[in-house]
Amino acid sequence: KMRIGVPKETWPGELRTALVPANAKKLIHSGFEIVAETGLGMGSGFSDDAYTDAGVTIQSDRQAILADSDVILRVRKPDASEISGLRRGVIHISFLDPFNERSLVDSLAASGVTAISMEMIPRSTRAQKMDALSSQANLAGYVTVIQAAYHSVKAFPMMMTPSGTIRPCRVFVIGVGVAGLQAIATAKRLGARVEAFDTRPVTAEQVRSLGAKFVEIDLGEVGQTEQGYAKALTAEQIALQKEGQKKVIAESDVVITTAQLFGRPAPVIVTRDMIEAMQPGSVVVDMAVETGGNVEGSVLDAVTEIGGVKVIGQGNLPSQVSRNASDMYSNNLLNLIEEFYDSESKQLVLDPEDEIIQAAVITRDGEIVNETIRNLNK
Amino acid sequence: KMRIGVPKETWPGELRTALVPANAKKLIHSGFEIVAETGLGMGSGFSDDAYTDAGVTIQSDRQAILADSDVILRVRKPDASEISGLRRGVIHISFLDPFNERSLVDSLAASGVTAISMEMIPRSTRAQKMDALSSQANLAGYVTVIQAAYHSVKAFPMMMTPSGTIRPCRVFVIGVGVAGLQAIATAKRLGARVEAFDTRPVTAEQVRSLGAKFVEIDLGEVGQTEQGYAKALTAEQIALQKEGQKKVIAESDVVITTAQLFGRPAPVIVTRDMIEAMQPGSVVVDMAVETGGNVEGSVLDAVTEIGGVKVIGQGNLPSQVSRNASDMYSNNLLNLIEEFYDSESKQLVLDPEDEIIQAAVITRDGEIVNETIRNLNK
Repeated sequence: KMRIGVPKETWPGELRTALVPANAKKLIHSGFEIVAETGLGMGSGFSDDAYTDAGVTIQSDRQAILADSDVILRVRKPDASEISGLRRGVIHISFLDPFNERSLVDSLAASGVTAISMEMIPRSTRAQKMDALSSQANLAGYVTVIQAAYHSVKAFPMMMTPSGTIRPCRVFVIGVGVAGLQAIATAKRLGARVEAFDTRPVTAEQVRSLGAKFVEIDLGEVGQTEQGYAKALTAEQIALQKEGQKKVIAESDVVITTAQLFGRPAPVIVTRDMIEAMQPGSVVVDMAVETGGNVEGSVLDAVTEIGGVKVIGQGNLPSQVSRNASDMYSNNLLNLIEEFYDSESKQLVLDPEDEIIQAAVITRDGEIVNETIRNLNK
Repeated sequence: KMRIGVPKETWPGELRTALVPANAKKLIHSGFEIVAETGLGMGSGFSDDAYTDAGVTIQSDRQAILADSDVILRVRKPDASEISGLRRGVIHISFLDPFNERSLVDSLAASGVTAISMEMIPRSTRAQKMDALSSQANLAGYVTVIQAAYHSVKAFPMMMTPSGTIRPCRVFVIGVGVAGLQAIATAKRLGARVEAFDTRPVTAEQVRSLGAKFVEIDLGEVGQTEQGYAKALTAEQIALQKEGQKKVIAESDVVITTAQLFGRPAPVIVTRDMIEAMQPGSVVVDMAVETGGNVEGSVLDAVTEIGGVKVIGQGNLPSQVSRNASDMYSNNLLNLIEEFYDSESKQLVLDPEDEIIQAAVITRDGEIVNETIRNLNK
């Protein structure tokens, strides 16, 4: 029997968990043994009893969990200090941020860990059910709108009352990926008047299908990568985009930016002068604050005020709905494990020729086996 | 020309204003002169310039505004220390909490102030447009849901994703007045599964018309007052209600209580044992926290945790959407002024025989003229 170990998250403010009781039950049924650290589900609404009821062994000795497991499940990348305590050959599944964590990757390789980076799951039809970046981005998009509504001096919906009519709040979403689409959908649900923009013209139809208006800014030729991310813009294109957005931003009550570039710092889209042109009491939510920020002046995990406009820099947005985020992330891991589980031998079989394994396994047998990451700093 | 003075609100955390620039413009057009204190609209998104542009004189000398005005507009009741500084015969329009502020009322009478209490505007068709309790309760209801969503570990809408299905959040609204109805409508908008309860069976149809489920609890005979408020329950009815609600509360992710009794402390509806029966990560919002609270353990302006359940005691909910709340409250005052304004003499004429004046004017010519308030402590 393979033993799965699930240590508690230690990243400050991390409320998610990599394994929810319902999925633990399924894995145990498939033939795994599971040991989880005391208090594992505390931040996402699961008691130790819920895990015990599912058949999980609860243990307070974190070092033992790390040392004695064949598979480790986590949300966040491991702390560097904990890598030497892992068993050689352990399969470690988590977000890993491998583009920015070279020394961590080196250390995982040196310790003989088979490290799977959930960011690197390919965007293929087969891998969709394991796509943790998307499952978390979807919830992050929802949370951006809740954060905006919480801090806005205006309600979102139109209300016709005997005391007068409240006009719908004007929301502008910049960046129409998974998160942006959910932000648009949520703001529409709440009754706002929503506009959106993305450098990829293909998103216009998706925006309109959600009942929002696509802001037309002619940037000339802009493509997208094979992974579906926007290509970087030229200096001239950036200037055109800024000019076009500035007017919409000034007329908006809420601006939500969701522009992320995979593995690279986020582009600055909303500059200080744009914020200053907004009405006092307006709100800007910077979803990319953790990767450098789309908004000038946004501060991680803080609400800053620029000319009476609140700039929200809440980090780790999925963790704000930790219950759903845990459910979805845990599903992604479960789907990954089930995909590569051989029920006869009761082993995880990670075929190096498999396209998901090729993309997502970063280190193995003492080496960095992922080509993209291996070639990064050459 | 009558002079209207609008001092800045001094109540801690009060972000609303009694006069918005658009309404100032209308009143000036009707023949009033308006003086406002510096920074009047700061909390609700209006700059001093916006007032100046509307024709308002901005003045930093608060005492002069209070001393030299014929009409004073405010959101909150005046500070006791400021009453002696008012001109004799001044018409003072604000919330006043006259049921609980006897000495304040006495002091207003003694100073010869004509005090209009916005809480006392009758619920008649003619007075609807001046009904500030309703205009603010409507927004408070919206805010309860935003507060709940902000603190909930679950997203509200159902989401069907490749990583799995997120089930809609279960919201239970207790008390179906103006605020409760807007809470139901907002939670439904956001995609939650909503149930509601009120002791007045007449509300069932309203609940259903918003797409929510009315929880049936047979309490026997319960009426409503002429003003449309619920009558107080007997001890036996309260026990029945508690039993019926307890089960629904235990199954809910979010409970919102909006039960207020006019002029009296709010009834305790959700007890500690009911909260402890909820799932950890759930949220309870106590809209009545300022008048004693519907929820055992709720604390004004704080988020407390009971058995992993967050109890939200945010006070002054309308102030959370200060822009809209100011617009609506200011409309209520504008409508009141216009109703009683004689454009020939350019005076406010408060006919003592008028039903609105009879209900809302508390003190006049050195006396407590309002019968209900005068008879309170006899």
